[in-house]
Amino acid sequence: MIKNMTGDQITLQVIKAIKENKKKDFEAILDELQPYDVAKLYESFPEKHKTRFLLFLNPHLLADLLEELDTDEQHEVLNKLGIEKTSKVLDLMDNDDLASLLEELSPERITALLSGMKKEESKIVRDIMNYPPETAGRLMTNRFVWIRNYYTVREAVGKLKSFADFAETLNYLYVIDEQRRLVGVVSYRDLLIADADEAINTIMYERVISVSDMMDQEEVARMIERYDFMAIPVVNAENVLVGIVTVDDIIDVVIQEANEDIEKLSASGKSIDFDTKAFVAAYRRLPWLILLLFIGLVSGKIISSYSETLEKAVSLAFFMPMISGMTGNTGTQSLAVVVRGLISNDIDKKVITRLIGRELGVGLIIGLTCSILISVIAYVWQGNFILGIVVGSSLFLTLIIGTLAGTVIPIVLYHFKIDPAVASGPLITTLNDIFSLITYFGIATLFIHKLM
Amino acid sequence: MIKNMTGDQITLQVIKAIKENKKKDFEAILDELQPYDVAKLYESFPEKHKTRFLLFLNPHLLADLLEELDTDEQHEVLNKLGIEKTSKVLDLMDNDDLASLLEELSPERITALLSGMKKEESKIVRDIMNYPPETAGRLMTNRFVWIRNYYTVREAVGKLKSFADFAETLNYLYVIDEQRRLVGVVSYRDLLIADADEAINTIMYERVISVSDMMDQEEVARMIERYDFMAIPVVNAENVLVGIVTVDDIIDVVIQEANEDIEKLSASGKSIDFDTKAFVAAYRRLPWLILLLFIGLVSGKIISSYSETLEKAVSLAFFMPMISGMTGNTGTQSLAVVVRGLISNDIDKKVITRLIGRELGVGLIIGLTCSILISVIAYVWQGNFILGIVVGSSLFLTLIIGTLAGTVIPIVLYHFKIDPAVASGPLITTLNDIFSLITYFGIATLFIHKLM
Repeated sequence: MIKNMTGDQITLQVIKAIKENKKKDFEAILDELQPYDVAKLYESFPEKHKTRFLLFLNPHLLADLLEELDTDEQHEVLNKLGIEKTSKVLDLMDNDDLASLLEELSPERITALLSGMKKEESKIVRDIMNYPPETAGRLMTNRFVWIRNYYTVREAVGKLKSFADFAETLNYLYVIDEQRRLVGVVSYRDLLIADADEAINTIMYERVISVSDMMDQEEVARMIERYDFMAIPVVNAENVLVGIVTVDDIIDVVIQEANEDIEKLSASGKSIDFDTKAFVAAYRRLPWLILLLFIGLVSGKIISSYSETLEKAVSLAFFMPMISGMTGNTGTQSLAVVVRGLISNDIDKKVITRLIGRELGVGLIIGLTCSILISVIAYVWQGNFILGIVVGSSLFLTLIIGTLAGTVIPIVLYHFKIDPAVASGPLITTLNDIFSLITYFGIATLFIHKLM
Repeated sequence: MIKNMTGDQITLQVIKAIKENKKKDFEAILDELQPYDVAKLYESFPEKHKTRFLLFLNPHLLADLLEELDTDEQHEVLNKLGIEKTSKVLDLMDNDDLASLLEELSPERITALLSGMKKEESKIVRDIMNYPPETAGRLMTNRFVWIRNYYTVREAVGKLKSFADFAETLNYLYVIDEQRRLVGVVSYRDLLIADADEAINTIMYERVISVSDMMDQEEVARMIERYDFMAIPVVNAENVLVGIVTVDDIIDVVIQEANEDIEKLSASGKSIDFDTKAFVAAYRRLPWLILLLFIGLVSGKIISSYSETLEKAVSLAFFMPMISGMTGNTGTQSLAVVVRGLISNDIDKKVITRLIGRELGVGLIIGLTCSILISVIAYVWQGNFILGIVVGSSLFLTLIIGTLAGTVIPIVLYHFKIDPAVASGPLITTLNDIFSLITYFGIATLFIHKLM
């Protein structure tokens, strides 16, 4: 019926159904929509109809809707629903989504919301919320189907049918023993081609790839990416199956981690997006800027200590921005390669030695190329051969130093288990400023008599 | 049997089986391994046993192995296999993986390899390779199950069983009409709970979310991420179902796109990783550096045009690195927020106006804070009140300019359909250098009589 309608047309149809109190029509339309579409519909809905829209939705659709909304919108919906309907809806939400909805609330409000829920559901959510952020335990869901190792294929299929609701998003059944330890995995395909009376433990796959509940989410993402899994089981220290992490959550993790790397590399401050208020964004960005301001003053101090040299040859100042800029740029280039590489490579001494050697080589090649170029330019522009030599040799040295700084600093941080991306582009740039000024004015001072 | 073995122990067992020519043992071990594990096993295998190892693998395992290897290793394997076995293996590979294996080869070699394959398989691969890179058509696979709209549930389940091999990785059957146009989708769950005699077109879901074969892969990733799908159908301009894109390929796309953004933001050059040779890496990084070198000389030219001012008050030079550094840093911060935001937001005039307004607000707040701070510092350090005013007011203006440049430049590029990430951090930094020097020396020249 709504197959070829645009979003606006659908909104109008839904408003019509609500106004005329035609619940059947309403449900016929909503049935054809994906949760993401329902969320977009809700967001674009006229404010005055929103509450009525929510009351028309059944708890299942409300749960789907909540899973798709931002935190602010989630709380708006919960307030409109009232506490009783809220509990019903929370029972139906995926418990990982519910945990992230709750984590922004006050402890009193969390208790109030959880107390209205079914006991077993609220216990699971509490368990998830007890895991540290960004771990497998925090990401996992209990919406999976497990079977016992003594089941037959027929029993397994029976259980699968009775949990058809969960089963939709998965391709595997997880097999546990009497202590709930994960002992195997069976795919739907295995069930389809097996004999109904066969025992599960003869057809199951025993070398199960699983992750620990305390594993960092980035590591979990790497496992799923490597194995091309749709979901991966999560076990605790006793190998008891406690949940699964699904690939759709992993896509969000990969995007989030990439954004975090970019935030750190650009020192742009945490979690600033298009909706962040100016005051908040400024507050998050200022700490870095003030730190960099003071580091910038160190550069000033260095120049001031060479002010005698500079007064004698003001033309030295003309090349300052170029030299410090180039040193900063080459450092940023190395940094980006190293930071992303540290994520996706297995790091050992051999890899690191080879990497530093490679970057040294890169520094030599670009140093040589750029310094010859700039020597000629400086000589032609200022008509001073010695100035050409001073600028060229400084650039040669600073490009090598800059490249190595951009390589070694993140590796050292990584070694001390500090996130290498905190050695942000701006930090490397500012540090390289200092290195380059010392080198440049140091060399210039040596040649000052010939420069004048 | 190998359930709790380490990788090394498994390698030893496999070598033993090969040496003793025990194919049964070999297959029992390999049966328990994931494709990724088989690839790791192959990579760590002693060189002298590698060929024999490959000959022990059946075509299915070889296809799995090839899908996991790097391009270089893939070609090594193909060379070891010989042309006849190669054709058999290529027939079994996912055709998207095969297309990316082939694209690095010479046209003659592609023709030679394809000619040994089954006709229908090689045609599909050729079709995929005709799509532009980074489109849905290039990513898609034909390993999916379609059914006709006049099927009953029983017929659909029958077809599903006969394609059990494909069905493992999917949760949906796609429904097509007599022109092969995509008209619906049915989930496994729908099949499980439906009556065997029901017609597919009464239970299927008609508002199918699909992507066009020419859609950019980043857009496809966004669709899958929004809808939390495991796979999305791909249709051509006539709505004919031509393939599906699966979520495991999308994870690779998301990682690749994030890496590309970081490469561009840091101007670090394309595709440099830990294995890139120094010469190649230097060659890829140099173009940007040389461009930035010339832009840096523009800064020098600006300073030289103010050399009279500078000679009269050399202390102005002390604050140059700080001012240009800060302007560059704030620009990089804005840039990172904008570039990532452009990817994940729906962009319209309202969003852009609000964003520029927000960043102007940010610029004002950080400008005010930092300029007051630096005025006091400059006054205390140099004991010159006017110098404090000059440095402070310059920093105030340049921070606002820097913030806006980091915001407006990527938006303008985006508007003209140029990837905003090419306005890399180094480029913005270098441009901001120029803005800041003009502002700083302009203001200083106005006050020069009071500065001396």
